[in-house]
Amino acid sequence: MTKVSLPKGTRDLTAADIRKRRLVIDVLQKKFELFGFQPLETPSFENLSTLTGKYGEEGDRLIFKILNSGNYLEKVDSQSLIEKKYLTLTSKISDKALRYDLTVPFARFVSQNHGKLSFPFKRYQIQPVWRADRPQKGRYREFYQCDADVVGSTSLWQEVDLVQLYSSVFSELGIEVDIHINNRKLLFALAQYAGIEEKLTDFTVALDKLDKIGQNGVERELTERGISETSLSKLRFLLEPQKDPLPYLRDILKDNSLGQEGLSEIDFVLEKSELKNLKLDLSLARGLDYYTGAIFEVKAKGIEMGSIGGGGRYNNLTEIFGVKNMPGVGISFGLDRIVLVMEELGLFEDDTCPPLDYLFVNYGDKAATNAQKIILQLRMKGYSAELYPEDVSLKKQFTYAEKRGVKQMVFLDEKKLAEDRISIKDPVSGIQKDMGIQDFLEKENGL
Amino acid sequence: MTKVSLPKGTRDLTAADIRKRRLVIDVLQKKFELFGFQPLETPSFENLSTLTGKYGEEGDRLIFKILNSGNYLEKVDSQSLIEKKYLTLTSKISDKALRYDLTVPFARFVSQNHGKLSFPFKRYQIQPVWRADRPQKGRYREFYQCDADVVGSTSLWQEVDLVQLYSSVFSELGIEVDIHINNRKLLFALAQYAGIEEKLTDFTVALDKLDKIGQNGVERELTERGISETSLSKLRFLLEPQKDPLPYLRDILKDNSLGQEGLSEIDFVLEKSELKNLKLDLSLARGLDYYTGAIFEVKAKGIEMGSIGGGGRYNNLTEIFGVKNMPGVGISFGLDRIVLVMEELGLFEDDTCPPLDYLFVNYGDKAATNAQKIILQLRMKGYSAELYPEDVSLKKQFTYAEKRGVKQMVFLDEKKLAEDRISIKDPVSGIQKDMGIQDFLEKENGL
Repeated sequence: MTKVSLPKGTRDLTAADIRKRRLVIDVLQKKFELFGFQPLETPSFENLSTLTGKYGEEGDRLIFKILNSGNYLEKVDSQSLIEKKYLTLTSKISDKALRYDLTVPFARFVSQNHGKLSFPFKRYQIQPVWRADRPQKGRYREFYQCDADVVGSTSLWQEVDLVQLYSSVFSELGIEVDIHINNRKLLFALAQYAGIEEKLTDFTVALDKLDKIGQNGVERELTERGISETSLSKLRFLLEPQKDPLPYLRDILKDNSLGQEGLSEIDFVLEKSELKNLKLDLSLARGLDYYTGAIFEVKAKGIEMGSIGGGGRYNNLTEIFGVKNMPGVGISFGLDRIVLVMEELGLFEDDTCPPLDYLFVNYGDKAATNAQKIILQLRMKGYSAELYPEDVSLKKQFTYAEKRGVKQMVFLDEKKLAEDRISIKDPVSGIQKDMGIQDFLEKENGL
Repeated sequence: MTKVSLPKGTRDLTAADIRKRRLVIDVLQKKFELFGFQPLETPSFENLSTLTGKYGEEGDRLIFKILNSGNYLEKVDSQSLIEKKYLTLTSKISDKALRYDLTVPFARFVSQNHGKLSFPFKRYQIQPVWRADRPQKGRYREFYQCDADVVGSTSLWQEVDLVQLYSSVFSELGIEVDIHINNRKLLFALAQYAGIEEKLTDFTVALDKLDKIGQNGVERELTERGISETSLSKLRFLLEPQKDPLPYLRDILKDNSLGQEGLSEIDFVLEKSELKNLKLDLSLARGLDYYTGAIFEVKAKGIEMGSIGGGGRYNNLTEIFGVKNMPGVGISFGLDRIVLVMEELGLFEDDTCPPLDYLFVNYGDKAATNAQKIILQLRMKGYSAELYPEDVSLKKQFTYAEKRGVKQMVFLDEKKLAEDRISIKDPVSGIQKDMGIQDFLEKENGL
């Protein structure tokens, strides 16, 4: 007998979960397509060499590697086995790995097919990814990412389109959000202004924590990371709540060309998108090594939850695969967190699995034969229906109906059959009706 | 620079592929739910111990194992490394593996939750599975299975319901099919009748090849597998084309109780399901070790393709996980083959990716700003629309439209804008229309 359990960090999704997730995914798919994005699905595993080195050292550790098939030790030299160096051994016994995100597989796809695609190429992708992260509440080792990216153009109209896409999706889902925007050029210019270009990453990593550790915390961290009080004093305005930092920024960066670029990009997106909930957030940093222009993050209003979406512009998606000049911009939606937010806000109609429209009580062979024929007709009309499979006590059949969730119980015994009549009963309200079979099929279906 | 390729046996699915697959999946989901099945999704990987030993020795070899995270060699004794015994090593360095089918994860789910579920429990599951099979044309290492199973009841009404489900799905998809049915009890009774019970597997494996190797081939194989001419002569009728084998079967099995059971089960399903295309096929055998009652297989008419669906009844799904008395019956749909059949029969409207409804030509900042506002309105009305992101030559924008697939090009330059008018052009027919912007939005949208 095998012990029954799930690998840690994984979960089964039952009907009630799936209904909620599908509702969100359907909205995403619809909106992605209205905005001109085309679907793409890539394989669950890629060559290990496609993935390694793209997510930093920590990322490489978290990639799930797949053991080669057959005798994977055959060609491994005994020395590396005896030395027990697992990092060296891994590349010899594993040449495939599970997808860690959707961006690198997309970059691989574009690199492999760039001769065939027409640019700008807009794709969306809704698929699971896997990470060997330490599981936590709400953090799984298998989870869905929902990404929309456009590559092959540097036009800022795409930033505008993507923030409008965010707005459109969350408005349809009924979630009030703030869309935070910042620009990597601006952050770099500010680092120049404070004389800490070489500490750009330290600066932004600390800045990004403002939400969590507050102004004092960020200042302490900046100091610990070796940023002087002189520099700090120039950047302190970033840490203080303010209405509109733009006039001050324009002033201090008036001679910084990168800063001017960043400002004009932000101006363009804020102006053209005409969204009240799109806000410049100078403390937004994100994975800075990756992004090169606009960066975005979405937070639900009135609820304590990390970001439910994020993204930004990158200079070159496919350079790692030897294909140059492929600028792009993309956004991502966090399916699990969106579902959690909607649950907390009570945005799902109910929490149950979809109920069955009709359960026909089984009264034995003859009545059941007729019931099955009516069931087929109901299904053709678009109602879900089934016959209780066994001719057992009414009590047992009722118990099943209650647990399963049934809108109407249907009674059709031989006596009723002889009269060409049928009874239906709503098990919740207890209301029971009696009618002709034709009437039932044509109008009085009780739903 | 990383070499760009896909692992063998995998593929990217682009918009045109995904459209076709979604069409089939949508029909499956709808029908599964009309028949009262509830969705379930299980994690992509399971504990290795959950999967091994369930698919035979060959199956165990084909399971993709996942390397443990971190220093997986740390606790491995040096001796097993030096000996280079990979089978022994595998269980020490891998405790997870990719799903090989949907049945064992379902059994694991039912075993783990049987106290909470109400029976009969009807679930459907549409998810990818992975097998380290040798890739071939149409056979991939990652492919979708679409299963519907009901557990917790031995009622034959469920066999009736499942063949009706097959019929309903394929009729909606427009595929004419034959549904083959047989019964494992009947095959066992025939083996008894021929005195070859101990050679049941040899008998059925050879019989199952009738389609491929013909009567002579099967007879030769039966002989090679040690079945005597006396036994063979009793079974020869199975290999000969015949109108209705039932009367003969009834006669030779009249004193065989298992045979009588098998016959009455087949009678019940044939009679109650009232399907003209449901046919007793005595040469149908399938994975006999697994099934214990009815077995099914579906073939498309008028096309050379293996089965596009299959299934059957099993005595106990969860015994391997220590939970007794869980009889069930299930069917599976082969998504890839169904798509192939529909392509060959020309059942998809077209082979392209979904076109964009409107592409707005970019005439520079001012015109584009107004175009983007109209685009937002079109999207709210349910039309897909986008602005060409850059203000480049018309020729370049037309080339993109042609490659992308666009229903209407929209022209809104500053002159038109001043007149409050717009032009649209169908790039295929060349028909161009000129109209007021309000008229365009409200009625004359050209689609």
